[in-house]
Amino acid sequence: MAKLKWGMIGGGEGSQIGPAHRLGAQADGLFEFAAGALDHRADLGRDYAQRLGIAADRAYGDWQEMLAGEKNRADRVDLVTVATPNSTHFEITKAFLEAGFNVLCEKPMTMTVEEGEEIVRVAEASGKICAVNYCYSAYPMVRQARAMVGAGEIGKVRLVVTNFSHGHHGDATDAENPRVRWRYDPKMAGVSGQFADCGIHALHMASFICRDEVRTLSADFASTISSRELEDDAMLNFRMEGGTVGRLWTSSVAIGRQHGFDIQVFGETGGLRWASEQPNQLIYTPVGGRTQIIEKGEGGLHEDAQRLSRVSIAHPEGFPLAVANIYCDLADAIRGEVREGLPNASDGVRSMAAVHTAVASAKDGGVWMDARPPMFR
Amino acid sequence: MAKLKWGMIGGGEGSQIGPAHRLGAQADGLFEFAAGALDHRADLGRDYAQRLGIAADRAYGDWQEMLAGEKNRADRVDLVTVATPNSTHFEITKAFLEAGFNVLCEKPMTMTVEEGEEIVRVAEASGKICAVNYCYSAYPMVRQARAMVGAGEIGKVRLVVTNFSHGHHGDATDAENPRVRWRYDPKMAGVSGQFADCGIHALHMASFICRDEVRTLSADFASTISSRELEDDAMLNFRMEGGTVGRLWTSSVAIGRQHGFDIQVFGETGGLRWASEQPNQLIYTPVGGRTQIIEKGEGGLHEDAQRLSRVSIAHPEGFPLAVANIYCDLADAIRGEVREGLPNASDGVRSMAAVHTAVASAKDGGVWMDARPPMFR
Amino acid sequence: MAKLKWGMIGGGEGSQIGPAHRLGAQADGLFEFAAGALDHRADLGRDYAQRLGIAADRAYGDWQEMLAGEKNRADRVDLVTVATPNSTHFEITKAFLEAGFNVLCEKPMTMTVEEGEEIVRVAEASGKICAVNYCYSAYPMVRQARAMVGAGEIGKVRLVVTNFSHGHHGDATDAENPRVRWRYDPKMAGVSGQFADCGIHALHMASFICRDEVRTLSADFASTISSRELEDDAMLNFRMEGGTVGRLWTSSVAIGRQHGFDIQVFGETGGLRWASEQPNQLIYTPVGGRTQIIEKGEGGLHEDAQRLSRVSIAHPEGFPLAVANIYCDLADAIRGEVREGLPNASDGVRSMAAVHTAVASAKDGGVWMDARPPMFR
Amino acid sequence: MAKLKWGMIGGGEGSQIGPAHRLGAQADGLFEFAAGALDHRADLGRDYAQRLGIAADRAYGDWQEMLAGEKNRADRVDLVTVATPNSTHFEITKAFLEAGFNVLCEKPMTMTVEEGEEIVRVAEASGKICAVNYCYSAYPMVRQARAMVGAGEIGKVRLVVTNFSHGHHGDATDAENPRVRWRYDPKMAGVSGQFADCGIHALHMASFICRDEVRTLSADFASTISSRELEDDAMLNFRMEGGTVGRLWTSSVAIGRQHGFDIQVFGETGGLRWASEQPNQLIYTPVGGRTQIIEKGEGGLHEDAQRLSRVSIAHPEGFPLAVANIYCDLADAIRGEVREGLPNASDGVRSMAAVHTAVASAKDGGVWMDARPPMFR
Repeated sequence: MAKLKWGMIGGGEGSQIGPAHRLGAQADGLFEFAAGALDHRADLGRDYAQRLGIAADRAYGDWQEMLAGEKNRADRVDLVTVATPNSTHFEITKAFLEAGFNVLCEKPMTMTVEEGEEIVRVAEASGKICAVNYCYSAYPMVRQARAMVGAGEIGKVRLVVTNFSHGHHGDATDAENPRVRWRYDPKMAGVSGQFADCGIHALHMASFICRDEVRTLSADFASTISSRELEDDAMLNFRMEGGTVGRLWTSSVAIGRQHGFDIQVFGETGGLRWASEQPNQLIYTPVGGRTQIIEKGEGGLHEDAQRLSRVSIAHPEGFPLAVANIYCDLADAIRGEVREGLPNASDGVRSMAAVHTAVASAKDGGVWMDARPPMFR
Repeated sequence: MAKLKWGMIGGGEGSQIGPAHRLGAQADGLFEFAAGALDHRADLGRDYAQRLGIAADRAYGDWQEMLAGEKNRADRVDLVTVATPNSTHFEITKAFLEAGFNVLCEKPMTMTVEEGEEIVRVAEASGKICAVNYCYSAYPMVRQARAMVGAGEIGKVRLVVTNFSHGHHGDATDAENPRVRWRYDPKMAGVSGQFADCGIHALHMASFICRDEVRTLSADFASTISSRELEDDAMLNFRMEGGTVGRLWTSSVAIGRQHGFDIQVFGETGGLRWASEQPNQLIYTPVGGRTQIIEKGEGGLHEDAQRLSRVSIAHPEGFPLAVANIYCDLADAIRGEVREGLPNASDGVRSMAAVHTAVASAKDGGVWMDARPPMFR
Repeated sequence: MAKLKWGMIGGGEGSQIGPAHRLGAQADGLFEFAAGALDHRADLGRDYAQRLGIAADRAYGDWQEMLAGEKNRADRVDLVTVATPNSTHFEITKAFLEAGFNVLCEKPMTMTVEEGEEIVRVAEASGKICAVNYCYSAYPMVRQARAMVGAGEIGKVRLVVTNFSHGHHGDATDAENPRVRWRYDPKMAGVSGQFADCGIHALHMASFICRDEVRTLSADFASTISSRELEDDAMLNFRMEGGTVGRLWTSSVAIGRQHGFDIQVFGETGGLRWASEQPNQLIYTPVGGRTQIIEKGEGGLHEDAQRLSRVSIAHPEGFPLAVANIYCDLADAIRGEVREGLPNASDGVRSMAAVHTAVASAKDGGVWMDARPPMFR
Repeated sequence: MAKLKWGMIGGGEGSQIGPAHRLGAQADGLFEFAAGALDHRADLGRDYAQRLGIAADRAYGDWQEMLAGEKNRADRVDLVTVATPNSTHFEITKAFLEAGFNVLCEKPMTMTVEEGEEIVRVAEASGKICAVNYCYSAYPMVRQARAMVGAGEIGKVRLVVTNFSHGHHGDATDAENPRVRWRYDPKMAGVSGQFADCGIHALHMASFICRDEVRTLSADFASTISSRELEDDAMLNFRMEGGTVGRLWTSSVAIGRQHGFDIQVFGETGGLRWASEQPNQLIYTPVGGRTQIIEKGEGGLHEDAQRLSRVSIAHPEGFPLAVANIYCDLADAIRGEVREGLPNASDGVRSMAAVHTAVASAKDGGVWMDARPPMFR
């Protein structure tokens, strides 16, 4: 099979997200890095792209130039990854979808719910793929968890509890560090700090594994470092459409938690537990039985978990290959074999609605509110 | 030193709590089991007490008989443990305090806030010890955590997150089992199920380690097994007097969690983590530094942690000896050396106030409420 | 049931082993501490015994006095614990057995194989109990492991691998500390250092769980701190009577290992893993299946594991209660219900033979030798 | 930087090692997969190579054809990976080195010590890189451990203890499975089974982290499944040139251990612990201090550990990226920046010497033998 052609917007030299996407797209030999507008400083972006092996005529100065250049080529890129600053995701994603490109957009897909709904409509109208990079959902054992829920192996889900709490912004003396400060500044981060940044991954995963959507929520936000305008710690209670009770804690001042992303799902006939720092194991307890350790790569896993494992049991696979799994699913989808687990524009707009609802609820003393985008009510 | 004399009310043959108290009182050779009214069936209680080595004249048929018998003896018991059904704690504790006995009351100390306040007043008037068995607080490494907070080793506490979530009531087909059902029946359990039963230990520990008290709270309760009138899953957000943000999750349907009691405390300069299933380690991370494992029995622990360790480093000590530590503190207190960490009637009434406030908040959509007993506002 | 009467020799004020035995004997209310010769300084011993509640006429100045005093009493002690320096175990144990007392001897039971064989013969002739304090074997989950092997749940045992390696003697600058130094001085410790001190517990446990005895062994000893005459690190390979392959590593310079005692048992149809720092779990993997966590206190444990648990599932029980379990078994045995798991004089002499054989093998370049006491060849 | 050109011999369709090398070589965009002789069935190999994107004229039918085809090209491959059956490694590696290619050879590099010594000489004469794929040594935290030892952070190393013990060949009923059986058949596997297959990784790592070489060893081998001619369980004791004591256990019948590769290094002033199933943490204990968790990606790591991390702290990286790290080092070396940690032909021949010595020692009752290749004595 010939490699698909791939382009990226953003992810310039020195960024952290650029290498993650390049590795994700290339690790399995599925995509050729064919085009890019990698930096908002046009010259630097063109130069860096060429150093990464992109031909000079596809090393673009900005995304508009890339759109113009690619859309008329016979060998146009099969997929565009949008890894620019958050506030630009909407217009770039929209423009490329409208021009008939498949898009993988970094999270958050948009800054507002209205924009998110527009992307959903544009994507639908275009017939193209609009994926959002909730890459944790592509760990094999997360897929296994989702498949087990789908197969009824833990019964109807009663309760989901998830945390994404680290401590890397817990040093008040470092709070003015520009790499930290912008996250708590509404002018740059939008309406929410830690919840929009990390918590939203956890909320997506709750929906992803439970195969259900958030209907209502109540939130409590705190700025434990008082100079912060936006929250650095948040708690959400929620209810899903099917009645599942949800709890979500997210924090950036939880000193000692390194990554701190985990999820527990409790159903009528069993419980599941997964943690991103030990992603190759899924802990399963049947009601009344003993806790079992399900290993990535063991025999008898659900198909989706097996398919996304590369090396044999107990050879750990980590975060970069979870990103690569998103690209595997995208390559399949581009070739016509749609993977149902791939996060899409609907997930993106639901996240945005949850963020805005949580902000409103927290401001109003934790009152319960409808968390769905209007288009999904 | 002569042994102190100890009596117990409740804890009859076949009960789980009786052996725990007997071991706790006798393990260190501090107390002699001298009197008891062990069963509401008078004959059985008298017989069992004698089989346990209590003299016939101090093997009582009920607590009133025991009170009458003991109060005029020269060698009256130095301490009475109240381990009867919850609804009787108030009257028994009150009566023994008024008669000049030291009391260790099982939790909950009372069923209402008013009763709790009365116990506080009676205890104060009596000049006697009224302790409540929040025994988790007596694990050496919990004492170490409290001492570290007190010594400023993690700075001002910003955030405390605690869980007490197990899955032992997660089997709906077993929900009518009498040993399970009463806990969710308001006629027997009172206003709250899982929160009053387990969550309250976690809330006490948050106060205990943070050295602060809960001021306001907001709660979300759920009966995930729908036949239950009382909650089997609850989430509390709270604020302490000093501004610390609190999160508490408690559940009895978290299948796969065996005990599931843990606490994380995050301050300005460090974080702490402790879990009751690995009680001999305290995990500590200084801000900007590496996570360290503090071991029970290592050199340089705070005095209270050292004092309550019996065997050397890495020889685990478990739950029964945490109960025994409460008795150690009681023996010291009876002999005049008061240990500041011993949970007392104030802790008991604060717990009751938190339970009633949480119930009210959960019923009212999670509205924030003052959680303090009126006497402490 | 009236309490049994218990006496101790050694375990004076300030010793570590004295409190462990007192707690072990008294925790469950089975024994009354009735007599003692607690210190080689007669006055101190008598005084301390009385402060611990022993009557003046049974607070003895030395073991000979205690033997003389007790043997003619109608209410003589039912059990004597020998917790004196190692080199005195033989004569004291022998004398008390010959006088018709039940004895619990601290390990090592003797210093030579010949002495050990004599104890076996004396015990047999006396008809009395001679137990040796291999207390790790009394953890409930160790008993569960032994029972599972006995029930064939892992098939024929192919391989046992055990470690007892800590790092508490790893500081060369502390090597002259008298509390450390004697262990590596043949004049005080005998022929072996770390293996005789710690490794022998592991070797006993291998036999205990596998229900088999060591037949041959090959050893490699090292004094990694070169000033030490005896080994501070040792490796044994061995074969059991039934052909099971054994591996045993023991060290006192393994800095970072706190207790470091664990065992893995691999059979034809499954594997087991237990570690003394998390003693309440037994890890079990059926061949071709998933790893399961067996919890102390769960339903369906083997009888011996259930009997020796005090509190419910996931309430940890630790080392002091393992010692107490030895006393539980002793109380039963004294009353006529013999527990087959109780370590006895045969275990004691086998250990001695293994120590002497390992020393000889290590000196001779690891040559394989018969490790059995002559009486068991 | 233009990509380097890479070719592979072996690793055909359905093999496990092929995908691992392709991912390793391509993940970071350093190598272009330019040539291959992927299968001993020439047609299948050519076809598969072309499906993987290799040009038809560089999709070779066997290694001789590839050697002939590549050696005269101006754009000849910069690196050849040899991933063929073990017995062919020697001749292929030798031939490509002699023709002036850089080679990455899968382990074992050769079947005999003599062959290994010849490769060392050929590599030296050629001036080309001859690397051996001891890929575990390229995990960032293994590099950190090696760097810490080099910097004296744990003092002189006294003791190294390593295990590589899994249970995937523990099912005797599966022992005739061809994928398992060949490993214990001397006609196919050579002189050693489990030790040569897995244990040798552990022995290399001991040398790698300790920065020392094995001088003497004593071995105990067992075929716990008696139908096996070669060992499925082995224990080595060894001494390194600098006096360090070594212990190595390897097994394939340790049911319940999934990967089971770990190493502990104990020096005069500290201890280190690493396990391949949690490869992103290195556990460090300074003598007399608390155990610390060193995280991949934390600030202040040694340069080599930092350089080989791709994503930030607590985002796990796994086995495939350890292989990729070998390719990173190779790319650097090809471009002239030699990385001192890259395993080379000397490591390959030392491994072979250890295997043959261990076999001889085990046959001779564990006698200690010189384990060095003659050329390094």
